[in-house]
Amino acid sequence: SGGSGGTMASESEAQRALQYEQTLMYGRYTQDLGTFAKDEAARLRLQEGDTPRPRRPSELLEYTQGRCAPCRVCALQCQRFLISKVGEDWVFLILLGLVMALVSWAMDFAIATCLQAQKWMYGGLDTNVLLQYMAWVTYPTVLITFSAGFTQILAPQAVGSGIPEMKTILRGVVLKEYLTLKTFVAKVIGLTCALGSGMPLGKEGPFVHIASMCAALLSRFLSLFGGFYENEARNIEMLAAACAVGVGCCFAAPIGGVLFSIEVTSTFFAVRNYWRGFFAATFSAFIFRVLAVWNKDEETITALFKTRFRLDFPFDLQELPAFAVIGIASGFGGALFVYLNRKIVQFMRRQKTINRFLMKKRLLFPALVTLIISTLTFPPGFGQFMAGQLTQKDTLVTLFDNQTWAKQGINDEFEYLGILEAWLHPRSNVFVTLIVFILMKFWMSALATTIPVPCGAFMPVFVIGAAFGRLVGESMAAWFPDGIHTDSNIYRIVPGGYAVVGAAALSGAVTHTVSTAVIVFELTGQISHILPVMIAVILANAVAQSLQPSLYDSIIRIKKLPYLPELGWGHHEKYNVRVEDIMVRDIRYVTLNCKYQDLQQVLHSTKVKNLPLVESAESMILLGSIERTQVGALLSNQLSPQRRVLLLRQKALSEDGHRLSDSSIRFQVRGCDWCPVNQSRYLTCPRAAGTLPAPSLCPLHSARPPPAATCGRGACRPQGCSNTPLLQEEMILGDKLTPTEILEWEEQQLDQLVDFSSAKIDPAPFQLVEHTSLHKTHTIFSLLGLDHAFVTSIGRLVGMVSLKELRKAIEGSLTGKGVKVRPPLASFRDSTASTTEADTTALHQLWDRHQHHHMPREAGPGGDDDD
Amino acid sequence: SGGSGGTMASESEAQRALQYEQTLMYGRYTQDLGTFAKDEAARLRLQEGDTPRPRRPSELLEYTQGRCAPCRVCALQCQRFLISKVGEDWVFLILLGLVMALVSWAMDFAIATCLQAQKWMYGGLDTNVLLQYMAWVTYPTVLITFSAGFTQILAPQAVGSGIPEMKTILRGVVLKEYLTLKTFVAKVIGLTCALGSGMPLGKEGPFVHIASMCAALLSRFLSLFGGFYENEARNIEMLAAACAVGVGCCFAAPIGGVLFSIEVTSTFFAVRNYWRGFFAATFSAFIFRVLAVWNKDEETITALFKTRFRLDFPFDLQELPAFAVIGIASGFGGALFVYLNRKIVQFMRRQKTINRFLMKKRLLFPALVTLIISTLTFPPGFGQFMAGQLTQKDTLVTLFDNQTWAKQGINDEFEYLGILEAWLHPRSNVFVTLIVFILMKFWMSALATTIPVPCGAFMPVFVIGAAFGRLVGESMAAWFPDGIHTDSNIYRIVPGGYAVVGAAALSGAVTHTVSTAVIVFELTGQISHILPVMIAVILANAVAQSLQPSLYDSIIRIKKLPYLPELGWGHHEKYNVRVEDIMVRDIRYVTLNCKYQDLQQVLHSTKVKNLPLVESAESMILLGSIERTQVGALLSNQLSPQRRVLLLRQKALSEDGHRLSDSSIRFQVRGCDWCPVNQSRYLTCPRAAGTLPAPSLCPLHSARPPPAATCGRGACRPQGCSNTPLLQEEMILGDKLTPTEILEWEEQQLDQLVDFSSAKIDPAPFQLVEHTSLHKTHTIFSLLGLDHAFVTSIGRLVGMVSLKELRKAIEGSLTGKGVKVRPPLASFRDSTASTTEADTTALHQLWDRHQHHHMPREAGPGGDDDD
Repeated sequence: SGGSGGTMASESEAQRALQYEQTLMYGRYTQDLGTFAKDEAARLRLQEGDTPRPRRPSELLEYTQGRCAPCRVCALQCQRFLISKVGEDWVFLILLGLVMALVSWAMDFAIATCLQAQKWMYGGLDTNVLLQYMAWVTYPTVLITFSAGFTQILAPQAVGSGIPEMKTILRGVVLKEYLTLKTFVAKVIGLTCALGSGMPLGKEGPFVHIASMCAALLSRFLSLFGGFYENEARNIEMLAAACAVGVGCCFAAPIGGVLFSIEVTSTFFAVRNYWRGFFAATFSAFIFRVLAVWNKDEETITALFKTRFRLDFPFDLQELPAFAVIGIASGFGGALFVYLNRKIVQFMRRQKTINRFLMKKRLLFPALVTLIISTLTFPPGFGQFMAGQLTQKDTLVTLFDNQTWAKQGINDEFEYLGILEAWLHPRSNVFVTLIVFILMKFWMSALATTIPVPCGAFMPVFVIGAAFGRLVGESMAAWFPDGIHTDSNIYRIVPGGYAVVGAAALSGAVTHTVSTAVIVFELTGQISHILPVMIAVILANAVAQSLQPSLYDSIIRIKKLPYLPELGWGHHEKYNVRVEDIMVRDIRYVTLNCKYQDLQQVLHSTKVKNLPLVESAESMILLGSIERTQVGALLSNQLSPQRRVLLLRQKALSEDGHRLSDSSIRFQVRGCDWCPVNQSRYLTCPRAAGTLPAPSLCPLHSARPPPAATCGRGACRPQGCSNTPLLQEEMILGDKLTPTEILEWEEQQLDQLVDFSSAKIDPAPFQLVEHTSLHKTHTIFSLLGLDHAFVTSIGRLVGMVSLKELRKAIEGSLTGKGVKVRPPLASFRDSTASTTEADTTALHQLWDRHQHHHMPREAGPGGDDDD
Repeated sequence: SGGSGGTMASESEAQRALQYEQTLMYGRYTQDLGTFAKDEAARLRLQEGDTPRPRRPSELLEYTQGRCAPCRVCALQCQRFLISKVGEDWVFLILLGLVMALVSWAMDFAIATCLQAQKWMYGGLDTNVLLQYMAWVTYPTVLITFSAGFTQILAPQAVGSGIPEMKTILRGVVLKEYLTLKTFVAKVIGLTCALGSGMPLGKEGPFVHIASMCAALLSRFLSLFGGFYENEARNIEMLAAACAVGVGCCFAAPIGGVLFSIEVTSTFFAVRNYWRGFFAATFSAFIFRVLAVWNKDEETITALFKTRFRLDFPFDLQELPAFAVIGIASGFGGALFVYLNRKIVQFMRRQKTINRFLMKKRLLFPALVTLIISTLTFPPGFGQFMAGQLTQKDTLVTLFDNQTWAKQGINDEFEYLGILEAWLHPRSNVFVTLIVFILMKFWMSALATTIPVPCGAFMPVFVIGAAFGRLVGESMAAWFPDGIHTDSNIYRIVPGGYAVVGAAALSGAVTHTVSTAVIVFELTGQISHILPVMIAVILANAVAQSLQPSLYDSIIRIKKLPYLPELGWGHHEKYNVRVEDIMVRDIRYVTLNCKYQDLQQVLHSTKVKNLPLVESAESMILLGSIERTQVGALLSNQLSPQRRVLLLRQKALSEDGHRLSDSSIRFQVRGCDWCPVNQSRYLTCPRAAGTLPAPSLCPLHSARPPPAATCGRGACRPQGCSNTPLLQEEMILGDKLTPTEILEWEEQQLDQLVDFSSAKIDPAPFQLVEHTSLHKTHTIFSLLGLDHAFVTSIGRLVGMVSLKELRKAIEGSLTGKGVKVRPPLASFRDSTASTTEADTTALHQLWDRHQHHHMPREAGPGGDDDD
């Protein structure tokens, strides 16, 4: 009986021998076009070596004779070589880096021009304050309104940051229209206008999205040269690299870009993607900075916001508490920002009158917000108290400045630094300006990032953080005018260093990342403050993560995208909650030996997209999973008019056909308008409406006979619509039957056993065991990007876990609020004892079944009494 | 039949209701001791609020009256609070960081003292060159010999870097004795001595190992306070964090440490571990540097090898080709280093005479190598041409120096810098010294790292890289004395910057990491050379990765640890090779309804550790997997003397017993010396040796009756040895049977059906489908740390893939050499067509079986002819 599987091996060898012939046919083509092209190129090169005369003289008319022939040959070879290289990863990454660097640089240039134009207009009208105000306010309003309108019309998907969507896409969820050329154009132009307006908006989130779209488009473009870009796994890997490129070329921060993109988009990360990201991001940042040198903006490649803090004594050990304070305060501030941002969105949604009004005039909200913000920053007005005339970039440059503003009172040696003047007000001091700036910018940024234009929140938050750090730094400098260090040398406090720390901490708190630390090092070109920055960022993260989700997760929840919450720190119970505590036990399934009416019943009773296929209701051995649409197709196929017609034709051979032409039915068939899966049922509906109750007619939509809109997407795909002309003809024949006859026929059909041979079945759906811990389940779900998994016990299906259950379980036990789906304390049973027992019992039953089935005489398990 | 699973739901609810009672019992204890302790503390606090009198007056004799009582209460509360907090992750991480910082600092201090002692000895004896030479050579020889001997005696596992082993452990493989206190002590002391000798050895690899051991020991220590540290998944996560701490506190480089440890130990990593690593490594680096400040080594917290390159113009764009050259050359150099290192080890192994000699005198090889190296570096001897008197740290400090050594010929303004003098030789120039240094150190480092002491290769390689970079930098400086930049300002070339680039590139090439870039930024405290460093590191990696495995992977292969090679870049075929091309089809399995003799046969015919358990040989439905040892235990239990004795006792009730006492057998039973699983067979062996052929007697070891050594570990565990006294008594009864009778009885027993109820079965072994791509299989294996996976098709077992097959498949197609296990081109078949067909066929068969079984009348799949 049991033992060695010799037959299996020989069988498989026979299979192989057969398949070998087949594959040889395909081998050449799908194998590796790169290799093929190389071989081909080598062959051609040899050929050309023998016969240097080109084969198509018409094309090479001007080169036929003379010295140019070898050049031409060489060019041809180069071209072939290049095409053969197109499939390599590094070519793709270099191209991506190059394109993104160009895009980033061009956008920066356009944005700078826009801002310059505003400044020029404002400056030119300094004779009349009213005109000045009009110019100051109108310019951003127009730009933002245009941006919102343009995006709305071309691609509404381009609105917002894009990082939440990328996170979702990298989890394996397909979001339509998010990576198209249209969205790309909308995002690039929309973002340029939005940032050109001078509103407190950022560009790094959108850049992640732009880079991803760029990668998707590039891979589609390059696939024209070969078939390497069709693999989905590879595309996902390239998207991960693209996210790194996006951040990298936005800040010229390759390392920080890679790390930041990992932190905000992934739960698990492959080290090989990390290398890809490094490669592409470095190349991109390099080109981005080379362009600046080429444009004479810079003398050589340096950091974007270069600082010049002293190297020998960057900070004193006793300043560390102040840095820690910045970190903790930033943690609270970051959480507050996320909360405020969410509340604004929710308020807009909930207030029905506002909502209705805004829905009608979509561009009013952006215009209104821009108007308010730009009015408040108007430099001769309130803007004078908050350095309103500075652009975001100038603000950062001044905040990272090397000097101490509050060193000896106000304006002493400031006069010569024009740009710093904005922070000084004759009737107030630096502290007031900074505090006003922080408070105003805080709500302005939270409000501005809700405008429906492409925009990020990283940069505004970064600036606020820098201002807060500067405030603390200036206070420290005022408190200890000669520094804290008491030894021979006097080392004054550097408020700019505090600004760097604050920027990293607040942006880290809002995004829940620690890689903002690396970004500030790369952005400022100095790493001397590494320990304060790291400490502040970690503290800020610890505080913010315990209070609020990250900004991106918050948006994911607002947008109701599918997500899987993170497992928090140190929640030991995660290791003890088990799948059996959270799984759904009451699942619908399809058996191998079921009838069509069972399928109907199953479709009726559940809405899940994937149904388990088990051997039989008794054994419950899981064989695979079948999609809901496939089940629907099986059903509709069985009950299709075509089959009925075939049947009738066979009948018609013996008896006469009395014709009946029903144009209304023909029309409906041609329309096939609401549910292609169930069209046969629908066809019978209008005629049989009087005699039969509606619910029993439509198994898929029994509860509510659906309008056309609900069925256009999702479960019902137009797979039955392909043969409409045939259908018409057949309908004429088919409708010889009366409704009652049709019903009878259908009842008959439903009573047959299901033929699964035409259905597509996933033969290995992901399986878990009952006592898999929540921790491990979470890991597997996020690693493999699963949507659902079946829970089995020794082959038997016992339950199912989907993202929903997992989310509930994690959030339930994480936050304390929300639905607790498991009975309290159910998860803390002793794992080894109970599960082993359960397993053994189940196995024992199975074994007993076999035992009794095969040889009921030798039943005793101990075997003691058989001698 | 099929349809809704209402019964399941009610069944499961009933189960729950039952289980709930059980779990309540456990709930309080295993749940979450932290919460429990908190509750308890709160309860006690309340109690004490009511009754402030302490309950154990004897202990609190001095506090009973007066003001100290509240203090005591407070202290008790604090104590309880602390204990309740011990389970939190962050407490663990802080403790780990603290301990490792102390260890690192103490070791650094000890090493510095050792080196100082050597210098002092060498300096004191400057009157006699011979004595000086003796001192210079003897001191390191003694230290290295001691280190080698000490490690050999205490824990041979402490030898070498430790990163290869950690990589293996983090894959989920259990390496015994690698994380024990003994190994910890051996590694710390051995490493201190080895580095104190001044040999070209590094400390970062061992530090990764030390930190991991520290984490393992700490978690075992903390588990005394509660049960949180027993979870394996958590321990693995903590080990990953510990690796980051190891590198972080070794170089005071938290970010680089985290990234480096990720790159060298993981294929996939969880972002939550990355945060853990950041937290612990930052804390550790912080404490490490604070200790230096506290010890007055430093004025404040700064980088370890602080550089002072100019900030405003770090390098010219036109210098980039030189940096790229450094990168490419370092790539070749790194590959050569790995190759050389491996060849030395292999040479030592292969040369049998050398090997035999070295095995006898284990300490001779270290002593010899040390002697040679220290002779060559003797400063008055050959050492004068290679800066032999400098320690590793001094070498780095000088190489990163800000000045240009070759600016205007030799020694001009050098006189005042004592330490730099080592690089100057009156009769040669800096270039010669650097070249000699690089060449000599290269082979010395490759040789020294093969000495069996705890040592790493990172630091030596880093130094060689820095020297190479310096060489290129000095050449550039000599070539362009006034810099390349042609504008108004003259920016001279900074050779120190080239040294930084070279160090990162060569160490990156040897370890196949890009995070060495981050490490040099943190190590030097300057990030201004970010682009050159990144470019050089990426180029070096590209070259080195295409030539050789990383040093750690090379060691893994030399040590024959289980590993999974990386998927290379751009190997598109990885996406097309499928599991069916590489899987083993000829597998042995256990069926549910098999007999004991089948088990015997299976054990005979295969050596795999996990056997699949299928429903029956016909259906081949995979139910689970059973360990080989479990199968052995089942067999031995069935044939055990105990069972035979029980049987005989039942017989003895009816007939008379004639006693037979055989002391020799009793002795053997007590010994139970070579195979606990098969002890019953062994017992019968000596007596039946004359009458029966040996192979048929021992099913597990039939071919070669094994010596005691081979069975002490691995498959056979001493599970049968627990009841020896009982066994003795029973043997006296049992051996009333003659050998022939025993054989007969055993034959009878073997013919019975197997009772699996006592066996431990894994109910959900990992399953793959035939057409899973190699890429995905690799991902899953490395994600989940799998050792093997079964390949199923709609529930049926069709094959098995283990690490070995996967490795062969990847390396076979990666390097071109090695065994190609799949037929050529077999993998490039059209996936959708063939697999869907195969699936459908298999499913169809299954379906047909059911069809015919249940209702043979309605067999037609179309169902057309039933009307």
